[in-house]
Amino acid sequence: MAVGLLAEVKYHPIAGFQLGTTDASIKIPGRKDLVVMQAQAGSSMAGVFTTNAFCAAPVQLCRRHLQDDSPLALVINTGNANAGTGAAGNADALTSCNELAQALNLNSSQVLPFSTGVIGEKLPIEKIVTSLPHAINKLDVNGWQDAAWGILTTDTRTKGASVQIEHFGQTFSLTGISKGSGMIRPNMATMLAFVATDVQCSPTLTQDLLNQAVNQSFNRITVDGDMSTNDSCILIATGASELCLDEDSELVAKFSKALTELMQQLAHAIVRDGEGATKFISVEVEGGANSEECLQVAYAIAHSPLIKTAMFASDPNWGRILNAVGYSGVPNLDVNTLTIHLGDSLLVDQGGCANSYTEAAGQKVMDQEEITIRVDLKRGDAKETVWTTDLSYDYVKINADYRS
Amino acid sequence: MAVGLLAEVKYHPIAGFQLGTTDASIKIPGRKDLVVMQAQAGSSMAGVFTTNAFCAAPVQLCRRHLQDDSPLALVINTGNANAGTGAAGNADALTSCNELAQALNLNSSQVLPFSTGVIGEKLPIEKIVTSLPHAINKLDVNGWQDAAWGILTTDTRTKGASVQIEHFGQTFSLTGISKGSGMIRPNMATMLAFVATDVQCSPTLTQDLLNQAVNQSFNRITVDGDMSTNDSCILIATGASELCLDEDSELVAKFSKALTELMQQLAHAIVRDGEGATKFISVEVEGGANSEECLQVAYAIAHSPLIKTAMFASDPNWGRILNAVGYSGVPNLDVNTLTIHLGDSLLVDQGGCANSYTEAAGQKVMDQEEITIRVDLKRGDAKETVWTTDLSYDYVKINADYRS
Repeated sequence: MAVGLLAEVKYHPIAGFQLGTTDASIKIPGRKDLVVMQAQAGSSMAGVFTTNAFCAAPVQLCRRHLQDDSPLALVINTGNANAGTGAAGNADALTSCNELAQALNLNSSQVLPFSTGVIGEKLPIEKIVTSLPHAINKLDVNGWQDAAWGILTTDTRTKGASVQIEHFGQTFSLTGISKGSGMIRPNMATMLAFVATDVQCSPTLTQDLLNQAVNQSFNRITVDGDMSTNDSCILIATGASELCLDEDSELVAKFSKALTELMQQLAHAIVRDGEGATKFISVEVEGGANSEECLQVAYAIAHSPLIKTAMFASDPNWGRILNAVGYSGVPNLDVNTLTIHLGDSLLVDQGGCANSYTEAAGQKVMDQEEITIRVDLKRGDAKETVWTTDLSYDYVKINADYRS
Repeated sequence: MAVGLLAEVKYHPIAGFQLGTTDASIKIPGRKDLVVMQAQAGSSMAGVFTTNAFCAAPVQLCRRHLQDDSPLALVINTGNANAGTGAAGNADALTSCNELAQALNLNSSQVLPFSTGVIGEKLPIEKIVTSLPHAINKLDVNGWQDAAWGILTTDTRTKGASVQIEHFGQTFSLTGISKGSGMIRPNMATMLAFVATDVQCSPTLTQDLLNQAVNQSFNRITVDGDMSTNDSCILIATGASELCLDEDSELVAKFSKALTELMQQLAHAIVRDGEGATKFISVEVEGGANSEECLQVAYAIAHSPLIKTAMFASDPNWGRILNAVGYSGVPNLDVNTLTIHLGDSLLVDQGGCANSYTEAAGQKVMDQEEITIRVDLKRGDAKETVWTTDLSYDYVKINADYRS
């Protein structure tokens, strides 16, 4: 179950970047669960990772390798998160780096490892070691679709986006894939995203551009409010095209906009595939004194199980929305001046249900698969948007059954 | 569905305090939905209310009347929360006070109004006015059991507690009832609680003792993290006994302990009857540098839908607990020294699953209806406990269907 039609993605290959996918039988035999990626020499790589204090072994290693070296390869497994696995987990993550580095003639610290799946079980590292050569054999610039399958866990479909943008007669490409359907909240979640581009870009600028784009995409989605130990988002700039960002501020602006939009597509795809999701909900909060209070209100709404179950029932229960705005914790909130819209219908003003509101109008909005809740705090110019899902029987089913 | 056996409560009457209950057909004909309570002249009354910025009309009026006067009567309706109802809601709440005051020969500001039920629909005040005389006719010191029914909404059973305590040959009594099953979180929730005692106690001390007890009971429970517009907890001291708290610090200590325990019983009863609850979960966090960080960790666990669905499935998924501790936001948390116990089983130490832990031991704890999760942060002496439920299919069903 997922919200919205599945658009087929045409993956533009990124010159200088190859992907290879295989079946290592890590959890389920016959399922693609091991992916390697290789960028050409001279590529820049940047990463953003979970802020969870219990971050997984591979995340710790990613951070160290990005700091110490210039990574050019990635190894990703599903079926096991290698999190909460202590010293053995660190050793296993390092082993996967060593093995891939040796095969590709790189330093071990030029490899970034990623794991996603069940927390707290030992990584079956021997299966990964055995299967790595198969994945390496498949390395191909057209490997995106297979890799999009290879990084999934409870996802019901692949998530990809790809664009080509012209700049004064030349063209650059941006292609990315993501995974994740539960345990999604701001500051990254059980999600992985890998985006590559062929522009030339210094590592520092690559990191800056990634930070900005993540903040307006992956850090603005929430499914169940949980945050994972393994979230990682990587941007690779191979430099295979002639276009160089470091000396062209106009190109930087164009690239940054394209990157943010592409990452929003990848982030929205995660929400649309949220565990048990039947609705895609945009929560827009405007008129705030600052971004922080807009986000406080937006997340109070987006995390409320009462609102999420009402959305599942297509019930325009505006009282629950008003209630969540009320307890969001914004200081000195004037409940008599703020307004709340459901779609285009004015729902709340003057501290209560708007006179012009009708149940029929609310029901019409709620019957849609895509719903926008808009709150205007009427006390400033700040604006933020957060995307989330409803809460359904299937959410409970998926998460009650996950390990069985 | 509710957790634990229903113990029959023997309600000790409180001298000087009467309750009367009737059917006003506010939402469902034939259901007890209107309660009045009257305390004798000279009684002290104290209240604690929701911190929601969108607090309901009756809550606003309660606060004002407690500040301006010495209330002696209460009027409570279910079926409609009179919240988000604007100026009409204020007028309706005041009308119910006026009517009861006139009948009992009090000032209007000596009446406190309470409403619980659906938010945002106009209160059918004429039904309340018509039925008030019937409720008044029933005023009786033995009216507790009927009142316990009369204040329920989605609750599946009544919630009451009553004790008699001896003090140097004399006896004081404490009796209370509560309601609430969803929308429960710290700082009060869609819950109402009314506790009466026959001790003599100044209004100021009554308020102090109530604040302390609420902080260790109703402010430590959570079902779904939502906080209601209508929560109210009232303590009435009629002074009908000879025992006077104001001049006896030993008695104050004894009374305070009894009050806190009684309020914990009433609060736990709400959690046990949590919407769709099949488990009663105690989250104990000890070894914190301060109370605040203990509560941060406890609520991260108690609010996690992933942990709550795992509890519903009786799945000892310790990875999800470790994960929630990790994202709780406690600064400089050392994940390698803290420990997590599930019941008596050591689950997590040294940053991962404890060597001594077995799935069988975890499963044994999870198969119980009552489960304790204990986190030792190993960095101080602070300790806090929070009580919550699991997240089941029925939670979704109840909240998706509530208005239909």
